Amino acid sequence: MISKRLMKDIEFIVELDKMKSILRQTSLINEDRREDDAQHSWHISIMAMVLGEYSNEKIDICKVIKMLLTHDLVEIYAGDTFCYDKKGNEDKKEREIKAAEKIFGILEEDKGKQFRELWDEFEEGETAEALFAASMDRLQPMLNNYNNDGGTWRKFNVSKEDIYKRIEPVKKSSDQLWEFVESMIEDGARKGLIQH
Amino acid sequence: MISKRLMKDIEFIVELDKMKSILRQTSLINEDRREDDAQHSWHISIMAMVLGEYSNEKIDICKVIKMLLTHDLVEIYAGDTFCYDKKGNEDKKEREIKAAEKIFGILEEDKGKQFRELWDEFEEGETAEALFAASMDRLQPMLNNYNNDGGTWRKFNVSKEDIYKRIEPVKKSSDQLWEFVESMIEDGARKGLIQH
Repeated sequence: MISKRLMKDIEFIVELDKMKSILRQTSLINEDRREDDAQHSWHISIMAMVLGEYSNEKIDICKVIKMLLTHDLVEIYAGDTFCYDKKGNEDKKEREIKAAEKIFGILEEDKGKQFRELWDEFEEGETAEALFAASMDRLQPMLNNYNNDGGTWRKFNVSKEDIYKRIEPVKKSSDQLWEFVESMIEDGARKGLIQH
Repeated sequence: MISKRLMKDIEFIVELDKMKSILRQTSLINEDRREDDAQHSWHISIMAMVLGEYSNEKIDICKVIKMLLTHDLVEIYAGDTFCYDKKGNEDKKEREIKAAEKIFGILEEDKGKQFRELWDEFEEGETAEALFAASMDRLQPMLNNYNNDGGTWRKFNVSKEDIYKRIEPVKKSSDQLWEFVESMIEDGARKGLIQH
């Protein structure tokens, strides 16, 4: 007899396939095609494995990875809101909370709660794990832009000031990664990938 | 001064973007498009979070997730070999070992070794973690096939016998998941998604 709990898990897993169809603004490095939420979530999760050692504070890397695998699930219903889209960001929180209730509500209550807690912690951005996870989430699109002729920086004419504001979690979570980020942004500006 | 170690990490992360362009045979559930290695790796990693509790043996779920995030990196150079392609599988191991040396060789030795050990453990398939990871890797394309009018099962006329052989890791790692898998395959056969 297959349990109701397991059938809900399977329903959730099947629903997650939609993450592969949610396009982000960021482009792939080697192909003229936008990446999707599933690709992005994988990239930043493995980035955490690679870069975890540079965190200033001791972090539970397993929790960071779980947060990163989970953090964009709300976009299945709320869609991707481009980080530099001021209007779209006005009602983002509200749309995403409704989406969180819907997606995590597929699971049995205790399991849905575990996923919801990871998402809440990421969104609040206060723990060392949430800050490091946010750093990965912000750094990856910048690496893609830098290695892809400016990517969305150029396409949307994003100012250096806005880029520095966006990448702030890195400053709070890792001195070594911050040094790298500053050097990348300044070099991007020198090369004309970022407006002055 | 940005360390040589960190610059190698960044080079590795940028190289990993190629995973988003390696197509697998499996199709998305809601779109007539094949999935890629990055999407697949994300899906099975979060599946491990959801289904970990059904493992017969106590497992280190963090290790399982790290394995799943890493297990397909060799395909950046070796390409994806379709599981039911007998000819392609003849020299798969050899091609993948060369690819592993190349991709993990980008990192500093100690870090490359950590990734390589995860990949080796997955490939050997002997530990409880490797078996559970393989179960996720095998189950996800089957869920996609079942929910997508038979998918590659029908496209390549795969026999029920070959499907049962492919999904064997689940039998070894979880009684509850195995019960589900058997019921799905038998139902798929009844519905004509799998040849008799």
